[in-house]
Amino acid sequence: MEINRIQTNDIPQIIKNRKSRDAIQYDGIDDRVKTIVQAIRQDGDKAVKHYIHQLDGVHLTNYIVTQAEIAEAYHSVSEDMIEVLNEANANIKNYHAKQKETSWYSADAQGVWLGQQVTPIERVGVYVPGGKAAYPSTVLMNIMPAVVAGVSDIIVTTPVQADGTINPMTLVAADLAGASQILKVGGAHGVATLAYGTETVQAVDKIVGPGNAYVARAKKYVFGDVGIDMIAGPSEVCVIADETAEPAYVAADLIAQAEHDELASAVAVTTSESIASAIQLEVEAQMKQRDRQAILQESIQQQGGIYVVSDLETAMKFVNAWAPEHLELQIAEPFEWLPHVKHAGAIFLGHYTPEPLGDYFAGPNHTLPTNGTAKFSSPLGVYDFMKKSSVIYYTENALNQVRHQVERFADEEGLDGHRESVRIRFND
Amino acid sequence: MEINRIQTNDIPQIIKNRKSRDAIQYDGIDDRVKTIVQAIRQDGDKAVKHYIHQLDGVHLTNYIVTQAEIAEAYHSVSEDMIEVLNEANANIKNYHAKQKETSWYSADAQGVWLGQQVTPIERVGVYVPGGKAAYPSTVLMNIMPAVVAGVSDIIVTTPVQADGTINPMTLVAADLAGASQILKVGGAHGVATLAYGTETVQAVDKIVGPGNAYVARAKKYVFGDVGIDMIAGPSEVCVIADETAEPAYVAADLIAQAEHDELASAVAVTTSESIASAIQLEVEAQMKQRDRQAILQESIQQQGGIYVVSDLETAMKFVNAWAPEHLELQIAEPFEWLPHVKHAGAIFLGHYTPEPLGDYFAGPNHTLPTNGTAKFSSPLGVYDFMKKSSVIYYTENALNQVRHQVERFADEEGLDGHRESVRIRFND
Repeated sequence: MEINRIQTNDIPQIIKNRKSRDAIQYDGIDDRVKTIVQAIRQDGDKAVKHYIHQLDGVHLTNYIVTQAEIAEAYHSVSEDMIEVLNEANANIKNYHAKQKETSWYSADAQGVWLGQQVTPIERVGVYVPGGKAAYPSTVLMNIMPAVVAGVSDIIVTTPVQADGTINPMTLVAADLAGASQILKVGGAHGVATLAYGTETVQAVDKIVGPGNAYVARAKKYVFGDVGIDMIAGPSEVCVIADETAEPAYVAADLIAQAEHDELASAVAVTTSESIASAIQLEVEAQMKQRDRQAILQESIQQQGGIYVVSDLETAMKFVNAWAPEHLELQIAEPFEWLPHVKHAGAIFLGHYTPEPLGDYFAGPNHTLPTNGTAKFSSPLGVYDFMKKSSVIYYTENALNQVRHQVERFADEEGLDGHRESVRIRFND
Repeated sequence: MEINRIQTNDIPQIIKNRKSRDAIQYDGIDDRVKTIVQAIRQDGDKAVKHYIHQLDGVHLTNYIVTQAEIAEAYHSVSEDMIEVLNEANANIKNYHAKQKETSWYSADAQGVWLGQQVTPIERVGVYVPGGKAAYPSTVLMNIMPAVVAGVSDIIVTTPVQADGTINPMTLVAADLAGASQILKVGGAHGVATLAYGTETVQAVDKIVGPGNAYVARAKKYVFGDVGIDMIAGPSEVCVIADETAEPAYVAADLIAQAEHDELASAVAVTTSESIASAIQLEVEAQMKQRDRQAILQESIQQQGGIYVVSDLETAMKFVNAWAPEHLELQIAEPFEWLPHVKHAGAIFLGHYTPEPLGDYFAGPNHTLPTNGTAKFSSPLGVYDFMKKSSVIYYTENALNQVRHQVERFADEEGLDGHRESVRIRFND
């Protein structure tokens, strides 16, 4: 892991190099996605089953998970893990409950009543990636905010395994969190099934959850017909370390991030030369003891880095230029520096708040904006599962007070029907 | 305008017919958009000026509006209109100020501190459509929520006119509302300029504002690299009228909606046969007196309709199946029925709250979800210009309390680096 001494004016180029990571061409994928989505939109279940057979290699007569399958799944998950899932669920629920907005109104003596009505989305689809490993944390983090929001129907979809089943851990986590229905449909065909519905599954209003390139491009394709959450890129951490940081902790947190995949990015920014060297040594030493050697070698070498800066002001400039998904402040005064952070998905303060604590357990969502999108987007939250309606009520008198202004505006925009809709109420 | 008597089970088909309005093929447009966006992303200003010349027919050496041009624009706008703009602006500001969220935290005695930090987006682009008419209300409605959010840089872009200028009303409205910079770049090239920046314009983080099909598809294309607001379709109103409704008011409001464009949709749902007939007659009579005959004929005939239902419960089912952009409740007890509305962009209560009041003046935003997207999205608001960061702080003791649960989770997901980042802090 290279150490670079940098100044403020080096930052834009570093960020630019990072951004060029994702200049991937999706043309081939996009064509395929379009074919799949259009087929399912037109032919429904027949097309869904066709793609499950073609792409997942399984013949399914029914792609909806049965109650019996869920009950069976509980038998294959250990009791202590169910306890941990329940505890995590409670923490996630508590944090997200604080995000829940309520309707409000304001009124004045002139007879003007204005409000904002906040209501849950009715039907939501949650995409859960498949593969050999199950990621129950992803299941909880995507379902629970919808539950807190008051969503009536939460439809989970996930790729079917070669034997026609779903990983039991995924089923248990989905059931515990509050899924209404679970489908065995992965990939772009899973997204299409949720977006447009079929004879057996009603379309949803919004789709959330991570997935591979086919899932991501399918979500972008159906966006507009349904809502979607963000399109997530590779995971990232930026650790800010001052001279009080413990290099072994910093290194462990960098490795925890880098082990996700080859494109994951783990970067430390420190005000101390000696801490930088110590982090470098610790990363080398600790890496050797980890399971995922190949992934770590690749991501630490290609995407990792240690930057030495003159002070924490410069470190903050780095943070705000990058807008990292995860930010750790392993510094003496993290609360003092918190207000300097303008853009980051999640911020971990102090020496005892490692990022994996947030991945699994603390409560805040682990679905976070990546690749600089924290400049304009937020962690997945209850607000993603609710929406607002403006409400306006004017009394006759209140409308009379402002009618000429409204009519003037309508004249300016050349819309006489707009003018008339006000004027007619006073019949002069 | 046809009258149809309908029952609950007729509603899905009516909504389905409405939805098929928008089954437009964008393939040709998408290819063109891609070419334009990629050219500007690669060649910057040179490509921007090329497309301004090719598509707008103007040679511009500088496409940024100067202070002198803004000062001149104020001379061509009448003082009374500036006063109306300022008054509307104040109402918009007051309403939107109530949407502003603040950061919060919660802490417990175990040493767990959790929070949500709310910060403004830094740079926002606002697309303002061009054409012969100026729509100052659109300018105010798109800029003001960004101003209230605390966005530092608000870059407006709008198509240049054949003489190289911008409509003065647009300039004045943008300046009054708080634009930082105004560009003379319309269409997909305007969106690309905002999204990726050039030698003279820095890229923005998010783009909002309505536009034609090229603008809409360009926004969808750049989505992910920057944030975007919703993609708006043709405007719509649904008026619910009981026996207390005044048919002339209902008709005027339907016409005000229909005059926007040929695809605009104006529908009344009433519990009264006689009110239905009276609305029909009023629409015929009033239409003849309006300016935009051709548009009205088309939109009223093709997209309009009057539906008679047995009761207000059924009317509400219609509303919630459609999720209309604008909903008027011209009924005796609008506040009693308000909680029954699950999905609508903006809701206008009572007999003296015509929709154009909300277009221009009342304060709530007039950029609203169309075509059923109110099922999953909200009016443009301050929340579109702010984003959240989760904040987590655990003391050593607090982490120690939960470390085994986090480690258990990491084991389950097969990530030993995640486990180690917790374990190493206790060195056992």
